[in-house]
Parts: sequence; C-alpha cells; structure tokens
Amino acid sequence: MVDIATRVYNHKWKIDPIVRSLIDTDFYKLLMCQSVFRNKRDTHVSFSLINRSTEIPLAELIDEGELREQLDHIRTLSLTRGESTWLRGNTFYGKRQMFRSDFMEWFENLRLPPYYLEKRDGQYELTFEGRWPEVMLWEIPALAVLMELRSRAVLETMGKFELQVLYARAMTKLWEKIERLRDLDRLRVADFGTRRRHSFLWQDWCVQAMFEGLGEKFVGTSNCLIAKNRDLEAIGTNAHELPMVYAALAETDAELRKAPYRVLADWHEEHEGNLRIILPDTYGTEGFLENAPDWLAGWTGIRIDSGDPATGAETAIRWWKSRGEDPRKKLIIFSDGLDADKISDLHRQFDGRAKISFGWGTLLTNDFRGLVSDDRLAPFSLVCKAVSANGRPTVKLSDNPNKAMGPAGEIARYKRVFGVGEQEALEVVV
Amino acid sequence: MVDIATRVYNHKWKIDPIVRSLIDTDFYKLLMCQSVFRNKRDTHVSFSLINRSTEIPLAELIDEGELREQLDHIRTLSLTRGESTWLRGNTFYGKRQMFRSDFMEWFENLRLPPYYLEKRDGQYELTFEGRWPEVMLWEIPALAVLMELRSRAVLETMGKFELQVLYARAMTKLWEKIERLRDLDRLRVADFGTRRRHSFLWQDWCVQAMFEGLGEKFVGTSNCLIAKNRDLEAIGTNAHELPMVYAALAETDAELRKAPYRVLADWHEEHEGNLRIILPDTYGTEGFLENAPDWLAGWTGIRIDSGDPATGAETAIRWWKSRGEDPRKKLIIFSDGLDADKISDLHRQFDGRAKISFGWGTLLTNDFRGLVSDDRLAPFSLVCKAVSANGRPTVKLSDNPNKAMGPAGEIARYKRVFGVGEQEALEVVV
Repeated sequence: MVDIATRVYNHKWKIDPIVRSLIDTDFYKLLMCQSVFRNKRDTHVSFSLINRSTEIPLAELIDEGELREQLDHIRTLSLTRGESTWLRGNTFYGKRQMFRSDFMEWFENLRLPPYYLEKRDGQYELTFEGRWPEVMLWEIPALAVLMELRSRAVLETMGKFELQVLYARAMTKLWEKIERLRDLDRLRVADFGTRRRHSFLWQDWCVQAMFEGLGEKFVGTSNCLIAKNRDLEAIGTNAHELPMVYAALAETDAELRKAPYRVLADWHEEHEGNLRIILPDTYGTEGFLENAPDWLAGWTGIRIDSGDPATGAETAIRWWKSRGEDPRKKLIIFSDGLDADKISDLHRQFDGRAKISFGWGTLLTNDFRGLVSDDRLAPFSLVCKAVSANGRPTVKLSDNPNKAMGPAGEIARYKRVFGVGEQEALEVVV
Repeated sequence: MVDIATRVYNHKWKIDPIVRSLIDTDFYKLLMCQSVFRNKRDTHVSFSLINRSTEIPLAELIDEGELREQLDHIRTLSLTRGESTWLRGNTFYGKRQMFRSDFMEWFENLRLPPYYLEKRDGQYELTFEGRWPEVMLWEIPALAVLMELRSRAVLETMGKFELQVLYARAMTKLWEKIERLRDLDRLRVADFGTRRRHSFLWQDWCVQAMFEGLGEKFVGTSNCLIAKNRDLEAIGTNAHELPMVYAALAETDAELRKAPYRVLADWHEEHEGNLRIILPDTYGTEGFLENAPDWLAGWTGIRIDSGDPATGAETAIRWWKSRGEDPRKKLIIFSDGLDADKISDLHRQFDGRAKISFGWGTLLTNDFRGLVSDDRLAPFSLVCKAVSANGRPTVKLSDNPNKAMGPAGEIARYKRVFGVGEQEALEVVV
C-alpha cells in the first residue's frame, strides 16, 4: 500500500530540494560561526566557488534554472524548533551548552544572504558576500547542491533497474572498504563527506552503513542533521577560513605573521580538550610549528589536511618531542584525500606512536568512480572559499602548491612572510 | 511518512507467507494440469521432495514448525477472482481461452490436498498423495517454500546494512550477466526460475531487471503470478511428469515403450504451434527420437533438459534432417543448468542453425554463490517428483545418470525397454 498523503504531499514540492535544513552542514562551521560571531561579527567577506577540476564543465552539465531554484530554496530555510533544541541541549565533545544563548538567538533568526551567479567559460561563478558569520554558512550547502545537481544530471538518463544496480555497486564498494577497515584495531574514523557527497540520501546511507559495519570504530559524522537524526556524535573543530580571514585583515607583515596564532588564541579561550586541534598548514606546516608559542604544544592534537600525510605526521611528532610533549598522548587527525587503503596504511604506520583518527570525506560519500561509462559520476575537486575580507584578498598556501589560492603577488608576499620555500606538488584528486 | 494501516495490517500476519497465490507457480504446471484433468483425472499419484544436494541438511537448517506453517498457509489458498479472470481472459502463446471452462471451474474450487512431513537423517521427507491434477500443483510451491526458508535461515543473523549489501551484490551480479547477454543478436531468453528461487521478491526483481535490461530479448516468465502482475508473457509447455506417470501406468513392456508417445499424442490433440515442444530425454533422447512417429518431427521444437546441451541440440538437428525437416525452422529450447556464459556459448554455436531460446532457471533467480561466508546461500539441487502412480513406482532416466530416479530394478527394466546404453555422467549443480 502506498501512503496517499505522502504521495500527494511530495507532488506539492515545486522542486526536490537538496538541502532541507540549515544544520545539513558541517559541525565545525557552526563552531567557527560562533567564534566569528563573537570575535569578528562585522567583518565583510566574500566567498567564491572554485572548481579545481576544470575539465568538468559544470555550467554545461547543470541547468542554471535548477541551480537557482536550489539556492533560492536554501535561502528560505531557517532553524526549526527541533534543530534549535538539539543544538542548545545536546552534548558535543562531552560538553553541554556548547552554543551560547546569544549565538543561538542570532542563529534562530538567520536566513542566508543573497548569492551572485554567473556563467563563464563553461563554469559557474557563484559568489556570496556580506557579514562573515552569515556568508560562511553558504559554503557547505552551496557545494552540496552543486555536487548533487551534477549527480542528478548524470542519473537522469538511466533506467530504474540500471539505477538500482548503480547504487548496488556503490553500496558494495563502500561495504568492501568497511570490511577492510573493520580489522584495524583501535581505528577511529568519522564521516567528513558532506561537502562533496554524491547526494544527501547517499551520505545518510554511508553513515548508517559505517555505524553498522564499524561499530565503535565509527566515531561520528561532521553532518549535524545526520548526527541529530541518527543519534550520532557531531564531529569537527576548525578550518582554514579562520586563519585566511584573520591574515587578510592584518595591516602589516608583522601582524600577518601573528595572524594564524591569533586565531588559535581566540579558539583557546573558547574551547578545550578534543576541540583544541591545530590546523597548521594554511601557510606551511613547518614554519607554523617552528614559530608556534609554547601553549600551542599543549593542545590536544593536530589535523593534517594537505601535503604528504605521513610526512605531516612525522613533522608533528618531531615538533611535540622538541617541545617536551609525549606524542603518544597527542591526537593526529588525518583528513585529506583519504580512502580505505590510505587509512589502513596510515593507521599501521602511526598506531601506537600517537593517538590517531581519520576524517574520511569525498571517497566515503562520493566514490562512484568506475561505475558509469566515461566515469561521469567520479567525484571532483570543488571548493568554496573565503576570497576576500574587508576588501583584501585572502591567501592560502597549504602544504601542497596545487591547493594554494590567492593573487600571485600576495602568494609571494605570504611565502616570504611565512618563510615557505620549495614545496612538493601533489595531485589533488578530491 | 509510514502508511500506518499497512504497518498494522502487516502485523496481523501470523507468518510472512512465501507463497501467496495458487498461480505463483510455473505456467506449464497449469497446462499439464488441464491435460491431466482431461485425460487422467483419477490417477492416484504420490509426489516426493528429493534433495539431491545431500550435504545441505535441510531439516537442521529449517525449523519444522515454520515449514508446516508455510505449507498450511498454501493449503488455505484458492484462486482469486482476478487470477481466474486473467487465466480465462488472457492470451497465452497467442491463443485465447487456453484454459477450458470445465478446468477453470474445477481450479476455482481447488484447495491443495494434505501433505505428509517427517524428518529423516537431517532431511525432510515431504510427500503429497492424491489425485494427480491436485497433487501435481504442490511441486512448485513446495520447492519455493523450502528454498526460501533456507534463504531466510541464513539471512536471519545478518544486520540491516549487511543485508542491503548482500542484495546489492546479487543485483550487481545479475546485472553484469544481463549486460553480457544484451549483446547477443536474436537472443530469446525466459525466466524459468520459480522453483529454486532465492525468494519470491528476488525473482520478481530479477524478472523486472531482465525486462529493462534485455528488452525484447526477454520473452517472458514461467511464473504466472509475476506474468500477471508485470504484464509479461507466461512461458512453458510440458515436463517429465507426464511421460513418467504415463509410463508407470503401462501394463506391459510394449505399452511402456509407447507411453512417451502417448503423452505427446494427447498433447498434440490439445495444443499447436509453439506449445508443441518435445521433451525427449525422460528415457534417453537418442532412442526416443529414433523410434518417434513421423508426426512428431512436424512439431515446432524440442527442449533440451539434461545431458550435454550441445550434444542434445546436434542430435535434434540430425534427427530433423533425417526426417526431411529443415532445422532452421525448428525451435530448440535449452533449459538445463544455464548461466550467462553457457547461454552465450550455446547461442553462438546454434544461432542460425535453428531457432533457439533459453529457459534460464536457478542461476537467474538464485545465484547467491560466493556472497556469504561458507557459501551458505548457494543454490542447491532440490526437486519434487512424481514417485508413484496408481501404486507403481515411476522412473526417470534422463540423459544424465546423475538425474535418474526410481527403484534400481525398474531403472534396469526401463533401460532395457528403451534401449538406453552407456550415458555420460554430468555433475548436477542446480
């Protein structure tokens, strides 16, 4: 029996919305948003979509009207009562009332600001401008919408059973990864795959499969909506946008040099324990750690998000030792371009030498490689980044020059200020 | 939204019935039943379950109470009005009113007769006794129930996502076969997989996937309920039980020798065109064809159901030629132990030399080989056969001694009467 009311209700949707909730976003976005709301509320920022996989002509694949409908729908969303209750009442990282009342009141009244969309050279130019705490919340839903519209464009031509077999293959593929990971003692892995997921429903499936297949080795998801619905831990700390904007706001080279530490000083005031995770690579990990104040060595851990991950982890371990810290008590979170094999390798390499944990993203929630002809469902490297703050361009160097961003002149200046020399260029797959 | 009424209704089932309709059976059973109803209505027969895969201890795997509940449920079934209308009004093999009114009236009032169930040596002894047209209708549902209860026993311990991945793998496996078959020009393949299916829902899925994936190359299903529900052709002609029972009823060796032809003479009176398909192997194909009356060479085709299929087809082609018939106008139906590779091979070998068609059974609807540990879902060779008629044992020789049945003394007698010499023993997989 079909539920008639459900069918009728579904027909009332003008579109099939991809993002249906303001908390269908990464947990760290909300943590950072609260921090920004407290410390940099009036900073004017601009975020832009950047498709690093230029061979994927997004503007040819995705209908502009459909994209506008999805983005417009997101602008109609506001926090529901249940979502607000969850954010206010739930325990995050063991702490109650992670989100302060003033922030929650602001968030409860938030609608996302306008977007600016144009087509150029087969790509979409999608930009968000306004106050930082508002604009920053566009990043994840904008990415999720573009990724899923691209999936839909490919799926549109497929038959019902062909589709079922496609998902059957994708399920099998993920399950085989889970079966391999299950054998790793002391594994800790979380879902970080919201932004570049194949689709919302698929991410939801992946998370549940991880939960059933890995048990306690699956520590949670970065996606707040899924964490809430599935009663899982919401996972995440902070990201590059904080040092990037703080750096752009610096008036002098001396201030610029201090900016990444200013970010963490603000963070230090707000958070403790497992939320004190250093993201060292924005302007080169080596220099960042070398010049870091001693109180940072006391932080819980470090997240390795670019460059060769094993090299990054060795650097961190060396640094902790040089500061008199015991690396075995420290947490290393790997979160860049992971897949089951890389997770296994890194786990074998570092298990016992530090506490380690994995934030598994795109190849968890969007590994459709090899499943359709011409690989038209393979994930690609789409990002949405802060590109300016109060009218000044932002810069990211990272530990991989292929992930660097910003105007060439500014990149050169940052490299000089942060003492970044030769870097190994690594292919950015996802 | 869940449909509350559906949930509540489902909770009212005391069991989850495997067979829910008297037409959840092979089409040829109904054709044969009508023929038996006309010609041998009062013959007393006994049908027995035979598990040729003795390494599968069915009575240890399947709970006796559950088996009884399923069999008891089948005894509560009667033809619904819609089913009756379909049988009376639908076109089968291009013919209207395939089922005569007197037969339909009898069928509409039918309930299946009692069953006799015992455990012995880890196996079930399941027997049906009574009038032939009633007892014969137990064969397919009895097999389907045992096959599906065995599947359920294995699936019971699996988690929700593990289960989903299991079916994902099975779907992928079938779809890859379909993709290979799709490339064969002039392919004609039907589903013959009711009796040894993994489950009803799985068979229904397989049939729909074949329909979408193969288009017109998929010619229909032997399962009447699925043919009705999915608006497909119901496929099938006749089976070994006719010559086996006719032979058992023979009073003398001379009558025995004529019995297989008597069956087809009765069939000749009732059916024409694509329903005139010879099943020659009950007592050895070679001798059967050699001694066949000339009118049989005029029949439309032949079904190869045991022995090496290519050899059987060559024998048929030679025989047609020796009788002045053009094999290219004849139909050869392969139906024994087929899988995609064998279908491809036979198609390449005989396409153009005769019209050919495939009845794909167990490895279409139950190929779960290699999908769980210890291969506990692999299909196995379960049959339900007429073992006696009016108190006399039946015998089947077939073209493969591993498929022979009956008391040793009777087998020897039949071999002598039908002039069957040395036969090649082939492994019976399914």
